[in-house]
Amino acid sequence: MSPARRILVINPNSNTQVTEGFSEALESLRITGGPEIECATLADGPFGIETQEHVEQVSLPLRRMVVARPDVDAFVIACYSDPGLHACREATTKPVFGIQESGILAALSRGDRVGVIALGAQSVTRHLRYIRQLGLMERLAGERPLNLSVAQSERPEAYDRLLEVGGALRDTDGADVLVLGCAGMARHRRTLEATLGLPVIDPTQAATADALAAVLLA
Amino acid sequence: MSPARRILVINPNSNTQVTEGFSEALESLRITGGPEIECATLADGPFGIETQEHVEQVSLPLRRMVVARPDVDAFVIACYSDPGLHACREATTKPVFGIQESGILAALSRGDRVGVIALGAQSVTRHLRYIRQLGLMERLAGERPLNLSVAQSERPEAYDRLLEVGGALRDTDGADVLVLGCAGMARHRRTLEATLGLPVIDPTQAATADALAAVLLA
Amino acid sequence: MSPARRILVINPNSNTQVTEGFSEALESLRITGGPEIECATLADGPFGIETQEHVEQVSLPLRRMVVARPDVDAFVIACYSDPGLHACREATTKPVFGIQESGILAALSRGDRVGVIALGAQSVTRHLRYIRQLGLMERLAGERPLNLSVAQSERPEAYDRLLEVGGALRDTDGADVLVLGCAGMARHRRTLEATLGLPVIDPTQAATADALAAVLLA
Amino acid sequence: MSPARRILVINPNSNTQVTEGFSEALESLRITGGPEIECATLADGPFGIETQEHVEQVSLPLRRMVVARPDVDAFVIACYSDPGLHACREATTKPVFGIQESGILAALSRGDRVGVIALGAQSVTRHLRYIRQLGLMERLAGERPLNLSVAQSERPEAYDRLLEVGGALRDTDGADVLVLGCAGMARHRRTLEATLGLPVIDPTQAATADALAAVLLA
Amino acid sequence: MSPARRILVINPNSNTQVTEGFSEALESLRITGGPEIECATLADGPFGIETQEHVEQVSLPLRRMVVARPDVDAFVIACYSDPGLHACREATTKPVFGIQESGILAALSRGDRVGVIALGAQSVTRHLRYIRQLGLMERLAGERPLNLSVAQSERPEAYDRLLEVGGALRDTDGADVLVLGCAGMARHRRTLEATLGLPVIDPTQAATADALAAVLLA
Amino acid sequence: MSPARRILVINPNSNTQVTEGFSEALESLRITGGPEIECATLADGPFGIETQEHVEQVSLPLRRMVVARPDVDAFVIACYSDPGLHACREATTKPVFGIQESGILAALSRGDRVGVIALGAQSVTRHLRYIRQLGLMERLAGERPLNLSVAQSERPEAYDRLLEVGGALRDTDGADVLVLGCAGMARHRRTLEATLGLPVIDPTQAATADALAAVLLA
Repeated sequence: MSPARRILVINPNSNTQVTEGFSEALESLRITGGPEIECATLADGPFGIETQEHVEQVSLPLRRMVVARPDVDAFVIACYSDPGLHACREATTKPVFGIQESGILAALSRGDRVGVIALGAQSVTRHLRYIRQLGLMERLAGERPLNLSVAQSERPEAYDRLLEVGGALRDTDGADVLVLGCAGMARHRRTLEATLGLPVIDPTQAATADALAAVLLA
Repeated sequence: MSPARRILVINPNSNTQVTEGFSEALESLRITGGPEIECATLADGPFGIETQEHVEQVSLPLRRMVVARPDVDAFVIACYSDPGLHACREATTKPVFGIQESGILAALSRGDRVGVIALGAQSVTRHLRYIRQLGLMERLAGERPLNLSVAQSERPEAYDRLLEVGGALRDTDGADVLVLGCAGMARHRRTLEATLGLPVIDPTQAATADALAAVLLA
Repeated sequence: MSPARRILVINPNSNTQVTEGFSEALESLRITGGPEIECATLADGPFGIETQEHVEQVSLPLRRMVVARPDVDAFVIACYSDPGLHACREATTKPVFGIQESGILAALSRGDRVGVIALGAQSVTRHLRYIRQLGLMERLAGERPLNLSVAQSERPEAYDRLLEVGGALRDTDGADVLVLGCAGMARHRRTLEATLGLPVIDPTQAATADALAAVLLA
Repeated sequence: MSPARRILVINPNSNTQVTEGFSEALESLRITGGPEIECATLADGPFGIETQEHVEQVSLPLRRMVVARPDVDAFVIACYSDPGLHACREATTKPVFGIQESGILAALSRGDRVGVIALGAQSVTRHLRYIRQLGLMERLAGERPLNLSVAQSERPEAYDRLLEVGGALRDTDGADVLVLGCAGMARHRRTLEATLGLPVIDPTQAATADALAAVLLA
Repeated sequence: MSPARRILVINPNSNTQVTEGFSEALESLRITGGPEIECATLADGPFGIETQEHVEQVSLPLRRMVVARPDVDAFVIACYSDPGLHACREATTKPVFGIQESGILAALSRGDRVGVIALGAQSVTRHLRYIRQLGLMERLAGERPLNLSVAQSERPEAYDRLLEVGGALRDTDGADVLVLGCAGMARHRRTLEATLGLPVIDPTQAATADALAAVLLA
Repeated sequence: MSPARRILVINPNSNTQVTEGFSEALESLRITGGPEIECATLADGPFGIETQEHVEQVSLPLRRMVVARPDVDAFVIACYSDPGLHACREATTKPVFGIQESGILAALSRGDRVGVIALGAQSVTRHLRYIRQLGLMERLAGERPLNLSVAQSERPEAYDRLLEVGGALRDTDGADVLVLGCAGMARHRRTLEATLGLPVIDPTQAATADALAAVLLA
């Protein structure tokens, strides 16, 4: 394939640490002969996407970023609220993936009932509404919040909460596959998977893998 | 009740004819002793809301309008795509109603299976996604487009298409109640209802009635 | 509008205290220039509607009451089991509202997942069957009983149980809007709403507001 | 087993020809050593159950009939609207079966997607509401009316319409099993089954078979 | 009816004690004048069906058994995983019933929300997947495992676990009818039913009753 | 990554032309630095998988093939009936993908309502049962058969039928993304996509892409 093929993974918030974090987590999807995977930060995005206002705020900037990059073959919106996803899809004939959508769909072929680990309680209602929009409620075991701020979620102690909440999703809610409901927790994926004995999906990896497939098969 | 009570019905597009049209259709909800019903136009909105981009474009301006009006007791977003609905709800403790949501919910106590008349084919997928988000698919008989532009929909001939499409929803899809899937068709409601023999819901009226109830019962 | 417009809210049980209670709760819907809201008691109804037998017993008397009142523009059946609703709808071209149906539909535009507070455990199965009939299960967080008799529910102590059960619906079941599953608890609505921090819907108010809208918009 | 075991199949309408018809269709369920199958007519029922008013009218008389027969081990309500089913169940610890419920459940182990043949168009909405109440919509291929009166349905020509409507359910709606949506069409069952090449369920037979099982296994 | 009519109930595992157990539980369905009920063991089946491998292993042997018995009028596959059900159905024009399918369908006319008692935790996911396939999730209260081996389930102490798990399904999950999720627990059915005050369905009895009905009505 | 990484794509039927066909279609997923993609034929499989018997027949041989290949990192079962999928998953800790499951899930992020093109009418019921099992019915626009034999489907004329059936799914059923319901039609994918103006998913490509992602991210 042509070396010019390129995937653009956009972090809709302005926190470059998040961008660096998932770029690292995408390293294994960067293969010789495969498309380039570029990670970008929406400079004028909020520091974190925590409210519906934040979601709305970034949707048109994301769309403009998509329009501005005709050199890109597939896009990933790397925020678990999938902001601007349909606006971006409307703006291009290239495939655009949202990490919540791709994360949950990926989970559906790795387990029967999906458990989602959210950062904060305030996002759960927004996510449930979206899972209903996707028509996937029958496969949801449950969604539980870590009740951590973005800052707290970046500390090593966050892992203990992940373990606790993931365990509750498995043992109380009956989940047999988990999705990390946030773009910034990929580094805990493997340990959590090994400790809980369940597949754990990092949604940014899942969406970028979808983009990789779309580019290779185009 | 206090004479200061007020409902603000916002037209997210900049077409003042639409605002005037629904303001007239809301006349019967303006009662002595009831709240004032003010209709406003989002001056910097697009001329019509026809794409997802238009939807995204107006959501934060709508939110700002809501925030700027602490004197208002309940809000109505008068565009059938319910743009910015959750962003507005997040910004105020006052009730905010979207006309698609209110229109369909109103239909559910007037019939068993709802038929929706959309303006253009391109909105149908967006609407279906939203009805799924509302969890109401089991009550949907179908949604069919008029295939008219906003301009065409304002001509008298539009009624013939309404009748044709409404008839198909009733006879082919089994609808026993109809919703006008657009803020600007209220003037045909009564005639259509009488001719087809089914209740026909105008969504702006339905949402404003919800606002009226919320204000009176607050 | 003509002063002759009238809504009839019928209490299907013979307990006039219940009728008086909800009539008072409907006071704010009685507005100058709006329709008259008349509350009536089904004299030969049972003292409370607690069983399926009671439900069946009142359906034809309700229908006869509807037929006997051509002067009425919209009807409300003010018992949470919505007895005789379809029989009444069949008997008139005027709109007829049931308080369970209207109460739950009203909740759907005030929150995402609905919690219902039932009087007794024996009603929960009947209500769940009905919510399934309405096609609204995806929006139900849960229904929990107060385990109080009608008599007990009228004492001030009832509020403590309301608070306890409402709290469980919010915290354990994830409800973000509540419906009072009974015609006689309106007087606790505002306090409960303020204390729990969630919208609380009184179903008789909701159905009468639906009737008000239907009459004004007819 | 005791010779005293008895199933009572009640025709809620006063048309004794219907009772005789289904009694004949139940002949093969009357086996030496099995329970007696008694067919009764609700003398004061309407001549046919065609409206919601008819449904309501017979529910308490049916309940009284159930209560009056402590000698019976299982009951069948032999009208496709399942009138009074829950009121009767509440009145006895003996099993009570409704023919719509039993007919559709029986179909679910004979095919994947069920087609229902209704007598008149006015019953279809009532039936769909009930299938939703049963939570079985995902298995419904469709329901189509014969558009025949009860009288017409008793003439030999009715078979041609059955064939036509059954064929549409199979070929257009994708049904692979059919239910006769009426208590009086059993005599066409075998021919229709052979001609269309699909299992055809007579609901009175299905419900009486359920009663037979319940009595034998009690 | 002809004395030659015969139902074949096949135990897909090679444990003849299970076959004898359910044969005894089917005694009351063997009536003078009714079809013969023959119980057979799949000699080369595994000792118990506990994994998906076991399920697959028996499906074609079951199909061959069905094909080899043209003298049989209806078949029952007596393992709660319904192995080979569709393969057998494809191989014959005679009705074939699976005990999970028939057990759950039978429960649906005896209660509103079904609780299932599974033997082991590892089967629960397989069963839930199947209930989803049946389109019956809206009627499921829950499924809980006994966490007993087949051997343990045959000891008298097993009853205590049945009672405990059945109680949790009733009190925590809201089940009002139970299904024994295994072919070998019929002997506890009546006691459990009496103690818990809920109908309890033995699935082998339910499926054989379905076969009895199909044979009698053929 | 290690050059030893390998994906095994198994054709459960013995038709090596099919294996060669999809191996060619997977060429673009074979990238320098990526895992090896080996395509194998189940030598003792039937010539085509057309019945439930064929499905059952290959499930344990597939499982044995999986067990026999500890050198493989991810497996694909390349038959649209997903035979033996759960039996294979149970036999290994490596990910196993079925092409129907992966094909439909891939479609869900490329469109809103999925249309499936089946080879023969007899598969449609089997597929619908499976989509229900996956809990994805709300996203299905429809499934329509080509009514072609495997042999016919390999001729150039097959494309005309694909176009016709795909057009009906788009225009009559409202699909906005299509899935080729068979392992052997990949060569028509791009042309069909371009002609119909909708994304068209080849399920073997989709499942192998899922395997690629799983291997890269393991």
